[in-house]
Amino acid sequence: MTTCNGAGTTAKPDRSETGQEGQYTDLSDIIRPVGHEMALVEEWLVTNLIDDSPFVGDLLAQIFQAGGKRIRPLISLLGSKASLTDSKDDVAHSEMSRLHIILAVLTELIHSASLVHDDVIDAASTRRGQETVNKRFNDKLAVLLGDLLFAQASICLARIMNPVVVGIYGQVLGDLCSGEIGQMRQQFVCRVDWDAYILKSINKTASLIAAGAHSGAILNARPDNVVAGLKDYGVNLGVCFQIVDDLLDVTGSAQQTGKPVGNDLRNGLLTAPALYVLERNDTSSQRLVELINKRAVQTDEGVEEALAIIRKSGGVEQAQALALSYGAKAKSSLSVLPDSESKQALIAMVDYVLVRSN
Amino acid sequence: MTTCNGAGTTAKPDRSETGQEGQYTDLSDIIRPVGHEMALVEEWLVTNLIDDSPFVGDLLAQIFQAGGKRIRPLISLLGSKASLTDSKDDVAHSEMSRLHIILAVLTELIHSASLVHDDVIDAASTRRGQETVNKRFNDKLAVLLGDLLFAQASICLARIMNPVVVGIYGQVLGDLCSGEIGQMRQQFVCRVDWDAYILKSINKTASLIAAGAHSGAILNARPDNVVAGLKDYGVNLGVCFQIVDDLLDVTGSAQQTGKPVGNDLRNGLLTAPALYVLERNDTSSQRLVELINKRAVQTDEGVEEALAIIRKSGGVEQAQALALSYGAKAKSSLSVLPDSESKQALIAMVDYVLVRSN
Repeated sequence: MTTCNGAGTTAKPDRSETGQEGQYTDLSDIIRPVGHEMALVEEWLVTNLIDDSPFVGDLLAQIFQAGGKRIRPLISLLGSKASLTDSKDDVAHSEMSRLHIILAVLTELIHSASLVHDDVIDAASTRRGQETVNKRFNDKLAVLLGDLLFAQASICLARIMNPVVVGIYGQVLGDLCSGEIGQMRQQFVCRVDWDAYILKSINKTASLIAAGAHSGAILNARPDNVVAGLKDYGVNLGVCFQIVDDLLDVTGSAQQTGKPVGNDLRNGLLTAPALYVLERNDTSSQRLVELINKRAVQTDEGVEEALAIIRKSGGVEQAQALALSYGAKAKSSLSVLPDSESKQALIAMVDYVLVRSN
Repeated sequence: MTTCNGAGTTAKPDRSETGQEGQYTDLSDIIRPVGHEMALVEEWLVTNLIDDSPFVGDLLAQIFQAGGKRIRPLISLLGSKASLTDSKDDVAHSEMSRLHIILAVLTELIHSASLVHDDVIDAASTRRGQETVNKRFNDKLAVLLGDLLFAQASICLARIMNPVVVGIYGQVLGDLCSGEIGQMRQQFVCRVDWDAYILKSINKTASLIAAGAHSGAILNARPDNVVAGLKDYGVNLGVCFQIVDDLLDVTGSAQQTGKPVGNDLRNGLLTAPALYVLERNDTSSQRLVELINKRAVQTDEGVEEALAIIRKSGGVEQAQALALSYGAKAKSSLSVLPDSESKQALIAMVDYVLVRSN
């Protein structure tokens, strides 16, 4: 299923026009400029930095062999590389590559840690089509594994030895908690507050993506406008990513997304398509409010009815347009960068995010 | 109840000699050299560094109004001050005081975060005589609160802007996880392995105390031997602290410690007094092994019998001697420091830890 029609700016035809599925779900073109570095990221992810026990190494292997698209380290590495221009910089990049790989790794570690803890907080039973750690084992092990991943990330952060980057990631951890708390407090509250929605999306999703996108440029000592451009790219792409996540909750299938359709609605979370319906205050909107307020969305029939209302009332199309606008802003933020294969890959990443199906 | 007889080296008489209770449980003499700074630590602990929501501030207030002796920030501030000598340094200390207070705060934040998550992992229902967060609310909120405290700590760490200190605390987070995993893997395993016991104690308890004790000297740019002396003090005091914790599990009361007596034994954790009994391999030892292997320690009768064996078999006295030896090592580590009120307070802290009752 195409999430956002007409999102692509590359030469490739949109899937909705060709009827071909999966064309944009292949990240291989985007990975190419940093393929070598991405392989090193995989090695680092399962390297036990904490102690010399094989047990910790085994735990890390279990976590990272469970899958994941590695979008965040990919954005981080591309941001690092795209911020460089001439041959002199290429030499510098080669010298600094170990730090850039550690940066990419820590971005994925924080993402994974927050997912493991989020699954405990949300009592989620499936993630990426597999049982969550809390479901397969228990909450206790999930807490410990999340902490272990945060600890690995902290050790990576220390190795980067850059106080500005430490500050950026410290704030990311705060933003993740702030986003989770904001979301928790808005559960089953039928108030249309777009500012709160965007803020939550920045905290929960965009903050970490933006940190990865622009920290490499800081390590490369690039000018402020380059750093700011990559940060803006990350923030806008992150919000776009969250809106597409919201769309997949309404239009996706459990097979695609690896979690039950309508999962957000069942948890009383107002997604972007739902907010568009609610702000109309018409009959459909009033019925949706009723289903949420009475917790009917927690039943199979209730959530199906709510999803049908959102699909029929144009909420999906409006949210798609919103995602596209953030995607466009992400692309235009890159105008400060010289053209390069990595810059083109960052642009293609926006299209990938817009049409992703999981 | 006196935990370790004859521990004191100060002029004050030991409680076991005077029959007076509580003389060493008063920290006011130890706090005096850093009383002003400790008041600022309290303010910082409840300051929301994450976002501008009053809700986060309220959560922090709830956590820190629940009590706690603030031993770790106290050691951190005393370490900072004791590492300074002459008036020139005093000026430098005054200029750096904000950083030292942040250092003390982050040490307590990490401690509190790990307690909140440990209580989820151990399914503990009481802490400091109060219901734990997981018991009073649920595991989900406890996970989020722990993460929130780690995030606050990360933001503090970033503000210190010192890559060496970032490295020290990154490793502390790893050590805490490593200690927790080590402990989890040794539950109900009746093997006497003192190296594993000491390593677990360093990871779980001493690492954070040592980080607080010597990081201030690093910020003050003190010579290596001063930094190393304060680190050794912290490691030895931390192991001493863990052994006393073990003793309190056998000799304390729920009223004193705020958690059920024999709590460690019920969870299959071999405390120092239990290890001394087990290594004898006599009739008492064999009965203790039986009670642990058959999980009889999980019942009231079983744990009472196990505690009685440990108390009667001299395990308590041997563990007291071990705690004293680590306390003595902690004190002698301070010999590199010039005499000062703060150094005397660090010495008195060892005595406080040795005779503490909670």
